[in-house]
Amino acid sequence: MQQQISVITLGVTDLGRSRRFYVEGFGWTPVFENPEVHFYQMNGLVLGTFQKAALEADMNRTGLLRPGAFALAHNVPRQEDVTPLLERLVRAGGTLLRPADAPAHGGFRGYVADPDDHAWEIAWNPAWTIDAQGHVTFRL
Amino acid sequence: MQQQISVITLGVTDLGRSRRFYVEGFGWTPVFENPEVHFYQMNGLVLGTFQKAALEADMNRTGLLRPGAFALAHNVPRQEDVTPLLERLVRAGGTLLRPADAPAHGGFRGYVADPDDHAWEIAWNPAWTIDAQGHVTFRL
Repeated sequence: MQQQISVITLGVTDLGRSRRFYVEGFGWTPVFENPEVHFYQMNGLVLGTFQKAALEADMNRTGLLRPGAFALAHNVPRQEDVTPLLERLVRAGGTLLRPADAPAHGGFRGYVADPDDHAWEIAWNPAWTIDAQGHVTFRL
Repeated sequence: MQQQISVITLGVTDLGRSRRFYVEGFGWTPVFENPEVHFYQMNGLVLGTFQKAALEADMNRTGLLRPGAFALAHNVPRQEDVTPLLERLVRAGGTLLRPADAPAHGGFRGYVADPDDHAWEIAWNPAWTIDAQGHVTFRL
């Protein structure tokens, strides 16, 4: 089985508010938008923001809770890129969870929640490589 | 800003139970394992399973809830691959949420929850392309 994730879908309550975080905060551009779902073409996978009720109907499970027990990470090329991006995401509607600092395992990172409480780690990890297409490779 | 997700980290309560779902169910191989976190090299990003309490400490936020308002998807090359993979994931400790059927927008998909209630959609989507490296491209 291919070690492959095709889509990450985030349940959201207000697509426009979420769009502002991803477009103004991260500077990303949706590849598709309708009143129920927005898609972003990412590095070998797709990010979706989907009305939470529609996501619950699709997965046949109600009562999805927030904040969920997961985090997404966006790694940046330089340590000095971490804090400005956290600040930009807060200006675009995010909530700072952890100002950037150096974890015991190395690197530099902070956390911000998107407008629907979904956590994003913004990290500089000097060990892992990121190629021009954004493909990230694990290294010790 | 690169349209790039570096890591998806799932909070789990039992790393061994989670490992069984991903290794026996999906057939994936971890690239790194210690008593706190397991990493899998995916298609241009990394999947992590991380002790939930350690994830909470890292993001500086307690009280993460399940099931969270998100889903991950693994797309397969053929419609007939969907149901056997759902069945295999259930045998590896998953819980079926939705048996496979055809949604209004096309294709064929079902949902299974991993042992920590994280939802996976197993989908056949004839419009989107998946290359040999597992890189997935959005298409209408």
